[in-house]
Amino acid sequence: MNLTILGCYAATPRTFTNPTSQVLEIRNRLFLIDCGEGTQVQLRKNKIKFSAINHIFISHLHGDHFYGLIGLISTFNLLNRNNDLTVYGPTGIQEIIRLQLKLSNSWPQYGLHFVELSSTEPEVIFEDEKVMVKTIPLKHRVYTNGFLFLEKTKERKLNVAAVQEHAIEKCYFQNIKNGKDITLEDGRVIPNAALTFDPPAPKSYAFCSDTMYTETILPIIENTDILYHETTFLESEEALAEKTMHSTAKQAAMIAKKANCKQLILGHYSTRYDSIKLFQEEAKTIFENTVLGDDGATFEWQ
Amino acid sequence: MNLTILGCYAATPRTFTNPTSQVLEIRNRLFLIDCGEGTQVQLRKNKIKFSAINHIFISHLHGDHFYGLIGLISTFNLLNRNNDLTVYGPTGIQEIIRLQLKLSNSWPQYGLHFVELSSTEPEVIFEDEKVMVKTIPLKHRVYTNGFLFLEKTKERKLNVAAVQEHAIEKCYFQNIKNGKDITLEDGRVIPNAALTFDPPAPKSYAFCSDTMYTETILPIIENTDILYHETTFLESEEALAEKTMHSTAKQAAMIAKKANCKQLILGHYSTRYDSIKLFQEEAKTIFENTVLGDDGATFEWQ
Repeated sequence: MNLTILGCYAATPRTFTNPTSQVLEIRNRLFLIDCGEGTQVQLRKNKIKFSAINHIFISHLHGDHFYGLIGLISTFNLLNRNNDLTVYGPTGIQEIIRLQLKLSNSWPQYGLHFVELSSTEPEVIFEDEKVMVKTIPLKHRVYTNGFLFLEKTKERKLNVAAVQEHAIEKCYFQNIKNGKDITLEDGRVIPNAALTFDPPAPKSYAFCSDTMYTETILPIIENTDILYHETTFLESEEALAEKTMHSTAKQAAMIAKKANCKQLILGHYSTRYDSIKLFQEEAKTIFENTVLGDDGATFEWQ
Repeated sequence: MNLTILGCYAATPRTFTNPTSQVLEIRNRLFLIDCGEGTQVQLRKNKIKFSAINHIFISHLHGDHFYGLIGLISTFNLLNRNNDLTVYGPTGIQEIIRLQLKLSNSWPQYGLHFVELSSTEPEVIFEDEKVMVKTIPLKHRVYTNGFLFLEKTKERKLNVAAVQEHAIEKCYFQNIKNGKDITLEDGRVIPNAALTFDPPAPKSYAFCSDTMYTETILPIIENTDILYHETTFLESEEALAEKTMHSTAKQAAMIAKKANCKQLILGHYSTRYDSIKLFQEEAKTIFENTVLGDDGATFEWQ
């Protein structure tokens, strides 16, 4: 699993900072999360393979999270994309995109699909044999979802020595990897645990932006490996954070701690502060394993 | 009159090239022409005073000419703009912007007005005491207008020596500048031409992008000082230019020559060519005073 942050600054795009967008890769699937203005240029600068993005998740309809979507959809068309593209986002996103494509007389030749979200309960919105994606209902000024990406458990690893010891034939290997016990010709049953090792633990990633501090998300993101949580402000602006329904660094850290996450990545910084290190310093007082997201930053987890 | 080109490349924004947008300043009025994705960042990079832009002209509803508009409108709001903003563009532009502002629950606190265009005849769409703006109906795949900016004639310049010679009092000066003759106390009439010099000739600027070669625009732009004309392709791709309803450099130069313009600025380059100098070389074979537009280029005319 790896993450490339294309943009993680609040409000407007500026000369050296970009609004929210990131690419999460899990087992060769590329998921684009949010798509602020300029995302397609950021994809190019970060050398992401455009065409491999088949799923785009939009948290909410504030401009710094989706104004780049229509441009990306249009560019996919200019690049002669063939693969289907599915956009997951709040109700209304389809109307916005369709209206612009209609008026520019440029409906794409690839399959463009929308999954519009309106539930305030967590729900599974994507699932295949390797990855599942759930919504994380957030609290913001407009309808907003975070997204929880759950890698599915891989098959068990064959204990080659044990299998050879019992002279088990190759045709049974897939069953063993799938967790089945084996009955030998002499009638003895070899339990699966004696023939396999545990697979690597599946990874999980939770994206939570934009939101005010809310403990309602804790049961959804409990034990998630990596939490990306917004911190628009520092604790000194806590009242402003509450008023604008954003979070402080300390609040983000409290969520990471209470949800028992392994790592916290911060982002969605207001540009009013001299250095984003201030966010990390504040969060670390609550949750030690806090790292700073930044435009162009990449993270990899084995 | 001066011009800053924020972007002048065709199709999609890329790492080092920007889609169409330019700022024309005429007698302290800032007009924004087209607004591709990333325009607000280009405005910052080129140190344009955002807040002084009160009029935005959109040629057509292809993404590379207007996808940056919604972001700029939103950013104006975040920057606490107070002045009214008027957007001139094809019918439909109002619906696109209003829908997005409604769904993001962020209608601006400043006055936002739309003048929707649908006529295929040239029309005056803006006029004040210093500048007039007319549409230039173009031929493209969707409804498209160019824009002709006409500076109005300034008042005549006082011939100070002549005025002193006739001992004319100050209270008559404004009448003289306005072109009136003066009757002296002894009954003699001094013609205005003896008391004033001609004012500097008013400047004019025509923006024509996107369009295929069309001579129907010649009567509208005849004798215009500066013509910005698109050249997506070179003559070697003339068939492709015709098919996609764009122009070649040679065709842009022919328009400049036939319309008796003083200077031609090229832009809207396809990124398929090694160097934009090829466009200039081709155009110069027809029209000598051809210059290359480029992102960040500025032009000033006295």
